[in-house]
Amino acid sequence: MDRVRKYRLLLLPILFILKGSPVTADPPNVIIMLMDDMGWGDLGWNGEPSRETPNIDRLAAEGLTVPHMYTAAPLCSPSRASLLTGRLPIRNGFYSDNTHGMNAYTPQEIMGGIPDEEVLLPEALAARNYTSGLIGKWHLGHRDQYLPLKHGFHSWFGAPNCHFGPYSGITTPNIPVFRDDHMLGRYFKDFAIDKNNGVSNMTALFIQEAVEFIERESNKGPFFLFWTPDSIHAPTYSSPHVRGTSRRGRYGDAVKETDAGVGAIVEALRTQGVDNNTLIFFSSDNGAALVSKTEGGSNGPFLCGKQTTFEGGMRAPGIFWWPGVIPAGSVSYQVMTHMDLFSTVAQIAGAEIPSDRIIDGLPLYNSLIHPELEVLRPVFLYRGDRLMAVRKGSYKMHLWTFSTPTEEMERGINFCPGEEIPNLTTPIPTNHTDKPILFNIEVDPGEKYPISRFTQEYSKQVTELQQVVSDHETLLVPGEPMLNWCDNAVMHWSPPGCEALGDCINPPESNPYLCVWDH
Amino acid sequence: MDRVRKYRLLLLPILFILKGSPVTADPPNVIIMLMDDMGWGDLGWNGEPSRETPNIDRLAAEGLTVPHMYTAAPLCSPSRASLLTGRLPIRNGFYSDNTHGMNAYTPQEIMGGIPDEEVLLPEALAARNYTSGLIGKWHLGHRDQYLPLKHGFHSWFGAPNCHFGPYSGITTPNIPVFRDDHMLGRYFKDFAIDKNNGVSNMTALFIQEAVEFIERESNKGPFFLFWTPDSIHAPTYSSPHVRGTSRRGRYGDAVKETDAGVGAIVEALRTQGVDNNTLIFFSSDNGAALVSKTEGGSNGPFLCGKQTTFEGGMRAPGIFWWPGVIPAGSVSYQVMTHMDLFSTVAQIAGAEIPSDRIIDGLPLYNSLIHPELEVLRPVFLYRGDRLMAVRKGSYKMHLWTFSTPTEEMERGINFCPGEEIPNLTTPIPTNHTDKPILFNIEVDPGEKYPISRFTQEYSKQVTELQQVVSDHETLLVPGEPMLNWCDNAVMHWSPPGCEALGDCINPPESNPYLCVWDH
Repeated sequence: MDRVRKYRLLLLPILFILKGSPVTADPPNVIIMLMDDMGWGDLGWNGEPSRETPNIDRLAAEGLTVPHMYTAAPLCSPSRASLLTGRLPIRNGFYSDNTHGMNAYTPQEIMGGIPDEEVLLPEALAARNYTSGLIGKWHLGHRDQYLPLKHGFHSWFGAPNCHFGPYSGITTPNIPVFRDDHMLGRYFKDFAIDKNNGVSNMTALFIQEAVEFIERESNKGPFFLFWTPDSIHAPTYSSPHVRGTSRRGRYGDAVKETDAGVGAIVEALRTQGVDNNTLIFFSSDNGAALVSKTEGGSNGPFLCGKQTTFEGGMRAPGIFWWPGVIPAGSVSYQVMTHMDLFSTVAQIAGAEIPSDRIIDGLPLYNSLIHPELEVLRPVFLYRGDRLMAVRKGSYKMHLWTFSTPTEEMERGINFCPGEEIPNLTTPIPTNHTDKPILFNIEVDPGEKYPISRFTQEYSKQVTELQQVVSDHETLLVPGEPMLNWCDNAVMHWSPPGCEALGDCINPPESNPYLCVWDH
Repeated sequence: MDRVRKYRLLLLPILFILKGSPVTADPPNVIIMLMDDMGWGDLGWNGEPSRETPNIDRLAAEGLTVPHMYTAAPLCSPSRASLLTGRLPIRNGFYSDNTHGMNAYTPQEIMGGIPDEEVLLPEALAARNYTSGLIGKWHLGHRDQYLPLKHGFHSWFGAPNCHFGPYSGITTPNIPVFRDDHMLGRYFKDFAIDKNNGVSNMTALFIQEAVEFIERESNKGPFFLFWTPDSIHAPTYSSPHVRGTSRRGRYGDAVKETDAGVGAIVEALRTQGVDNNTLIFFSSDNGAALVSKTEGGSNGPFLCGKQTTFEGGMRAPGIFWWPGVIPAGSVSYQVMTHMDLFSTVAQIAGAEIPSDRIIDGLPLYNSLIHPELEVLRPVFLYRGDRLMAVRKGSYKMHLWTFSTPTEEMERGINFCPGEEIPNLTTPIPTNHTDKPILFNIEVDPGEKYPISRFTQEYSKQVTELQQVVSDHETLLVPGEPMLNWCDNAVMHWSPPGCEALGDCINPPESNPYLCVWDH
């Protein structure tokens, strides 16, 4: 942390200001579809051999594919927080510094959540009269002040955390499912998930809710729908009529049902006649969780998976769809991050982008409508509070490397199964700052062949990337870490609305402790 | 070899006979485009991130994709011999038993080639009045009796062997480029290849020749064009106007120019008005040569590469295109092998399939026009004379495993760079016949998670697959191995036509020796 903290006292410059005028007279509806743990290689469009995503593939064929799309973090909560704020986790607080360079997220014992000071996309859009709905997993904190309706969303159906469980309700309560600001029931108890057989109708509900949202909100003011089904996250599940239909097994079933949901949403837009006035962005919150073995997804040609800052951990599907505006069947080689969604959607809507803080996202509307344009910009790949790597242009430079801790490997956990690159997939956090590891990620997307340190290419690129890192760190003022403290008393014992359902549980005594992050 | 030879004396049954009536009144032209060392993952259609194959991708979008397409061998010569004969290398003689289980091919010191007894696809098609042309690499033997015009082709432009070199002409002559039955000149000397810079206009010539062939042969009788450019094989090359234009570097340049060739060929068909009467099949002779590192291609999600019987060695792109007949944008999950091309093209043309020998290919026209149909059939994966693995339905069973010999690894050769699966990517040929390694290759295309031997699934599938292997071996009568003997005197010292060019070199004394196959 010394490295990132030492510039805290520098004044924060204003990077850019953009406000006021939408790119079209009629700001479009916006749907962001964010899958949970879906890998880059899980789309037929990206080469999944079973080719079971016809609806997502059709989005790509009718829209713009961005093969170089990065998530802002290699796991759920920080990735989502960053997409919605346009800011790196190290800025918006979605990290821990309990142990440096470790991934942290929001299990139900977490005390923190998204700070009020952060401006979320639905808050930015509210000024342009957007109605914003969240359907699916939230994961930006579950205590009252962190819930979606406190941060710009007008409606919500879904859960604040992952669908882990079932729990006894004695040491751990089941996760609640919310309608807006109150619980409707709990996973496993009221919203069934047969974890052993991988069956639940939750995705069907998330699809139905999305279609109803579109029916309700179309042809009023513009809407923003953040659709975040979580069935592809382990334990994976699908509806009874889908379960067993994929060639890929249980994981593939979950993908198939989600893909059908994409089709249903597009169909609903067409039925409402708003398809030509709706921008869809499709992606995933991080790379496939290879730790789940045959119940995890595929990162295609990329190295390792979720939890790592190798390409397999942070490269995600990237599809933009806006008929008549974004050229059909186009490809943009723009290196993008999810954080660009914040800025780009705000740009498109004519909403103000906060000018009193650093926004990592760029307004890239031009790259969507003119796919041949490329803005040369860096992407910073963090694991927790540690800058692990940086990508700019064709090059990626690793300053630190870390795959899976040896003690976790011994317990069968492996974020890079079957993959071993000497000096790269290191079982402990390894500092290469003095001799960074450099790849041309377009020539070598699998990060297998480091460029020799004894070449001009290495010297030139590393020098340039080191300057990029130095500039980044000079301006970096880390936000207050929100994921340091845990307390079993903050679990979902008595969520709002539990009284009406007779489903309140007495919490234990409050006993805050430093959360433990293993990797 | 004991295992495969012991049934030699069994009578050979007649497996099936099919003759006489083409599937349409007007037998179509047929173009087989066989790339050299292109990987499954090199197509944008199969997820290559730079998406630089728009013409091949368009073939797929307008035609049928077969994700489960296997080559008949994990390297060049045996793969090509099998595609053209419909028979495994162990039957058509394209193997060596100098050392069991080692890959052999046809370098210019090889004495053997395709036996006269074998019926090649152009020979089968001749009875249906097809005119057959080969444009590109041959690789089925280069001594007079083995050349393409002795085996059914009516015309040829290209070389008999790989474009290795340049050679001095003292210990080794440069490879000749032929027009029909005589040499036009030699690689490096008359047909320039700048190996250091990866520049040559050979692909441009192969494209031009193909377009001229189509212009010449269209609207006469039906034609068969076997288009086999070799620029994607190391040392890769491309034309000056293409070199340096790919985002993927030198390898990508070669892919881009080949892709442009596909576009030019389709355009020529359209110009001639024969596009609706032409079947195109697009594939590669084996998986990407990962041994070439950043100058090799990508096998997408599959394990290892060329030379191995893991999926990355033998899974190849598979695209069928026949406008108006094969449904556009369709996918067939049929497990196919290149050997099916022999039988399927013969079936489509109404040509006779030899009934006096075992043909491993199946006539699968129905699977092309009704992609939902699937014939459950085994595919046998050999390395040289050794049956390494078998695939049937969703399952693949490894009887033997072998990646790269330790002594070659020490020399920097690696067929599985960055990949290591315990007990699977073994550095020596390892016999698992007693406890075969089983994968569900649809759930686990990367061959990372063997199915536990202590499951019902394992018992059931292994029992079934062992029976399949037993049946296969009962009927197996290995052909005479053609790739055992080498002799420096058979090199291209004085190819036919050398006199007219003043380019004959005196050969050394004949001194046959057993070829050495290292892996």
